Amino acid sequence: MSKAKLVILDCWVSPFCMRVKIALNEKGLEYEAQAEDLFGVPVFLHDGTPLCESIIIVNYIDETWSSPPLLPPCSYGRAQARFWADFIDKKVFNACGNIWRSKGEVPVEAKKEFIEILKQLEEALGDKDYFIGTTFGFVDIILIPITSWFFAVEKIGGFTAEAECPKFSNWMKRCLQRESVAKVVPPPEKVYEFVLMFRKMQGID
Amino acid sequence: MSKAKLVILDCWVSPFCMRVKIALNEKGLEYEAQAEDLFGVPVFLHDGTPLCESIIIVNYIDETWSSPPLLPPCSYGRAQARFWADFIDKKVFNACGNIWRSKGEVPVEAKKEFIEILKQLEEALGDKDYFIGTTFGFVDIILIPITSWFFAVEKIGGFTAEAECPKFSNWMKRCLQRESVAKVVPPPEKVYEFVLMFRKMQGID
Repeated sequence: MSKAKLVILDCWVSPFCMRVKIALNEKGLEYEAQAEDLFGVPVFLHDGTPLCESIIIVNYIDETWSSPPLLPPCSYGRAQARFWADFIDKKVFNACGNIWRSKGEVPVEAKKEFIEILKQLEEALGDKDYFIGTTFGFVDIILIPITSWFFAVEKIGGFTAEAECPKFSNWMKRCLQRESVAKVVPPPEKVYEFVLMFRKMQGID
Repeated sequence: MSKAKLVILDCWVSPFCMRVKIALNEKGLEYEAQAEDLFGVPVFLHDGTPLCESIIIVNYIDETWSSPPLLPPCSYGRAQARFWADFIDKKVFNACGNIWRSKGEVPVEAKKEFIEILKQLEEALGDKDYFIGTTFGFVDIILIPITSWFFAVEKIGGFTAEAECPKFSNWMKRCLQRESVAKVVPPPEKVYEFVLMFRKMQGID
């Protein structure tokens, strides 16, 4: 098989784009990241064939380049991983947005909801090092990029989640030490700057 | 392998539950449907192990019982199928709800949006008999149950979609002739009665 040409239409601050780049790094694949203005919408090109939706792309990467596997080997494990990926997609980014997009004082309910979601995730994590299985995988890849927005969320919300969700925080630190993650996920302070600029642009501040 | 005990916590009018039952029928598997009040939330029990989220369950069924396959064999075909399943999940049922839940006259935009979505699906279908591939499969299973609500949507909205989307209508008729579908999808008139009753209960009428 000749070497595939892999391109991602990328935005450095988008957690959705980060997911795709981490998956490619985990597979040891070379790719070109083309900076685009498509905030939140990664497009992945495999020899020119386009794919979109980050969870679907990560799934595709795992099925196309099988080693090392990102999804568990058994169908039940895969269903659990897909359930949590879907949960994260529907809940976490929105919960963040309800805080950092808010005008004036951040509503107490928005902070409460954010912590509640982290606690649900912490319960799913349990005493394991990673979500679903013993190695870094699919659910970790879907979730870890969003955590780069947490510093901005906490600064704007005036709270910290670490004390309330210690296991979750340890999982975060563990993931951020991986090379595949570290070279993709931006420093939280840089995301915070971006969020402040975005709030200004939108007339929130 | 001893015979698996398969149970679905079911609601006859839920398109999400219908998906699971059609997938089980396609695989030729026997299952018990336990009527529940959990409208819209199918739970599937495989030898007592619970799974939820209909798309994830159908995916699980396909991975656990491989014949006949519901998803295409290549990873790109599977990514396409998952993209359209996700599109259907995010768009079609909501667009229906914006019509049948509306108080008073149905907004023109709601009808326009509904037709637009059908047209997008019709374009994805093209001249093929089924979505993605040449045989009835994953995307058809995800979409066909929702069409049992179209009669109610059209009656309440005071329009018909068939003339505007003839290829889509032919696909619908083709699918509804399959035994796996016919024994699961209720008559549109029965869904319409349910919707009218639901509207009364919610004080819409």
